[in-house]
Amino acid sequence: MDERDLPSGYRYAGVHCGVRPGRTRLDLALVLSDRAAAAAGTFTQNRVVAAPVKLCRQRLPTRDARGIVICAGNANACTGEQGFRDAERMAAVAAKAIDVRPEQILVCATGVIGWRLPMPNIEAGIDKAAGELSGEVAAFERAATAIMTTDTKVKVSTIHPAGAGYRIAGFAKGAAMIGPNLATLLAFVVTDAAVRAEDLQPITARAAARTFNCVSVEGDTSTNDTLLFLANGTGPALAGEALARFEREATRVCADLARSIAADAEGASHFVTIDVEGLKTDADAHRIAKTVADSVLVKTAIFGADPNWGRIICAAGYAGVEFAEEEMSVWLGDIRLYERGAPLSFDAGAAAAYLRNNREIHIRLGFRSGMGRCTFWTSDLTYDYVKLNAEYTT
Amino acid sequence: MDERDLPSGYRYAGVHCGVRPGRTRLDLALVLSDRAAAAAGTFTQNRVVAAPVKLCRQRLPTRDARGIVICAGNANACTGEQGFRDAERMAAVAAKAIDVRPEQILVCATGVIGWRLPMPNIEAGIDKAAGELSGEVAAFERAATAIMTTDTKVKVSTIHPAGAGYRIAGFAKGAAMIGPNLATLLAFVVTDAAVRAEDLQPITARAAARTFNCVSVEGDTSTNDTLLFLANGTGPALAGEALARFEREATRVCADLARSIAADAEGASHFVTIDVEGLKTDADAHRIAKTVADSVLVKTAIFGADPNWGRIICAAGYAGVEFAEEEMSVWLGDIRLYERGAPLSFDAGAAAAYLRNNREIHIRLGFRSGMGRCTFWTSDLTYDYVKLNAEYTT
Repeated sequence: MDERDLPSGYRYAGVHCGVRPGRTRLDLALVLSDRAAAAAGTFTQNRVVAAPVKLCRQRLPTRDARGIVICAGNANACTGEQGFRDAERMAAVAAKAIDVRPEQILVCATGVIGWRLPMPNIEAGIDKAAGELSGEVAAFERAATAIMTTDTKVKVSTIHPAGAGYRIAGFAKGAAMIGPNLATLLAFVVTDAAVRAEDLQPITARAAARTFNCVSVEGDTSTNDTLLFLANGTGPALAGEALARFEREATRVCADLARSIAADAEGASHFVTIDVEGLKTDADAHRIAKTVADSVLVKTAIFGADPNWGRIICAAGYAGVEFAEEEMSVWLGDIRLYERGAPLSFDAGAAAAYLRNNREIHIRLGFRSGMGRCTFWTSDLTYDYVKLNAEYTT
Repeated sequence: MDERDLPSGYRYAGVHCGVRPGRTRLDLALVLSDRAAAAAGTFTQNRVVAAPVKLCRQRLPTRDARGIVICAGNANACTGEQGFRDAERMAAVAAKAIDVRPEQILVCATGVIGWRLPMPNIEAGIDKAAGELSGEVAAFERAATAIMTTDTKVKVSTIHPAGAGYRIAGFAKGAAMIGPNLATLLAFVVTDAAVRAEDLQPITARAAARTFNCVSVEGDTSTNDTLLFLANGTGPALAGEALARFEREATRVCADLARSIAADAEGASHFVTIDVEGLKTDADAHRIAKTVADSVLVKTAIFGADPNWGRIICAAGYAGVEFAEEEMSVWLGDIRLYERGAPLSFDAGAAAAYLRNNREIHIRLGFRSGMGRCTFWTSDLTYDYVKLNAEYTT
């Protein structure tokens, strides 16, 4: 990545401010658009939502966003009215530091539930970040680093569509397999294309449905999950086919980030792609794919290199989708295990070796009811997963 | 337990026949009613069901059942038409051995999915079991032992309601935390009361809803789950209040068996009771209780003695039930952690000690929307769980 990969008119910072006592890593990020940007967002479906999510929902979509402030280590969730005031205060402090209005700032958080934010540290951190804002790649990467919690890798993705005259850049933190943050997924996508807020909102929702909603590590849905899009219009205005292309390109950035999240699931030994096809609707395919992905029995079988296709079929069966057993087929990589309702004799040794020798594995479920399909990403369940989750202490 | 605890007019057997190669334990059970019994059943909600479940569904409810044959080690699921013929054959062989009609026999199985039954072994086992049928306690316990797979304890429960003139006895195998059998739950309840088949069927369904449907180890729903009730009418005929009392007593037997299943979850270090109350409907309360019980993050926190109530609230939030965050309260044992939408300052050390020092723990979630409630039983998630599931090989 070099500076030409980044959309113009944005600056970034990532600093350490002490969101959690005793930690020294970067834990506060700031993103600034040099001019008013269209902004849209999609959020967790959890009934219990963190204060920053409530704040963003009030403010989005908008034609007039200038920045995002994000803290990592404390979710500011289940913190009552004080938590909401703290989120507002984060926006106000950031607005003052970069000389914009508080309503132009969006706020996100990830981390432990139920603790009040350490506001003196946060406020000092925001001022520090405002002083370090920069359009350089290093600053972009510092922002991407500062939103991480137990993620082991920075997750960034950029795209510069040939001849389109704009760029799209995204960074995310993970549904890492680690629970302390309830697998909070935060993702931020910025572009210098000019996209109207009323177009950007459905694009954001559809991109999330096809990418971030198709990644799951342990099935828990966080109180804080957030995807934000900013489009500041430094580049060309998009409509018609150009807008459709923008949606495809932006979805590619999101898919790239979503895959990195599943691949970085801490404690995982396999990255698993699940393709489900031939259902009546995409929603049915999604439901089956997610149920298979979240099955603890499927996950442990993969960890144990056990080609136990019965667990896959069983999970599909309780997904709540109507299908006939006789129309289902299952593949593990290129090995067909089950065809139209009957087991096949397959080389169990080869299937076990496929699981043992590949970090990235592929499961495919085929049905014969329609054109509905879904690609879903997940990871396996290992000793390290249990260790990480059990030893984490509030 | 002594012979007086068992309903009259039933005989039992449990034998070894070699359902799985290389195993030596008891693996085939037979239950015979000396006269035609009313029989009812409830079954897995999985779309993919094992051949014996298909057979039982065809035959139930009935006024004219004589016996049940059960094999452990092979689920006879995903075995196509041959599997159904094998299940019919099990019934026919048992019928011949005990001199009744094939349609009077019910069939169950638990074990690995996708393998054909070893019919020569099974047929020899049925003949052997028929020769050993007995009404003694030892025979009842041998039958209960023969349906186990990775269960570590035999699960039986009997009740002799004072002055009622009948007895109820049940035995079950577990949703043990072990996956190889996809947590198949099999339970059999027999009584010498006279209950009409048309009464027995709804009683069976309601008893299952309040007991076996309120136990979950890893959330997977097996292809084979089955609860069967037999009432042979050796004792008094029940109607009106006497029938209502029978339902309560039979539900107690089922609850006792359901709790033993959660308590025996292999690899588990905690037995967890989750009480949810104050929702609009019992179904809403059940949905929240099951979602909390199945949350891998909640389970690992309990294993790690971490009073991380945020994970509990988060799981409640994504259960798909509408509620206001401000109406929720959470207790761990007697310690209130969260009240009406706001965290409480509690003694984290005492809460951690409660988890560390008790094998049986209690989580309570209170809402303020209505009278809907549910009691649910589950277990935690440990290293041993992953080990058992990963190392099991088909």
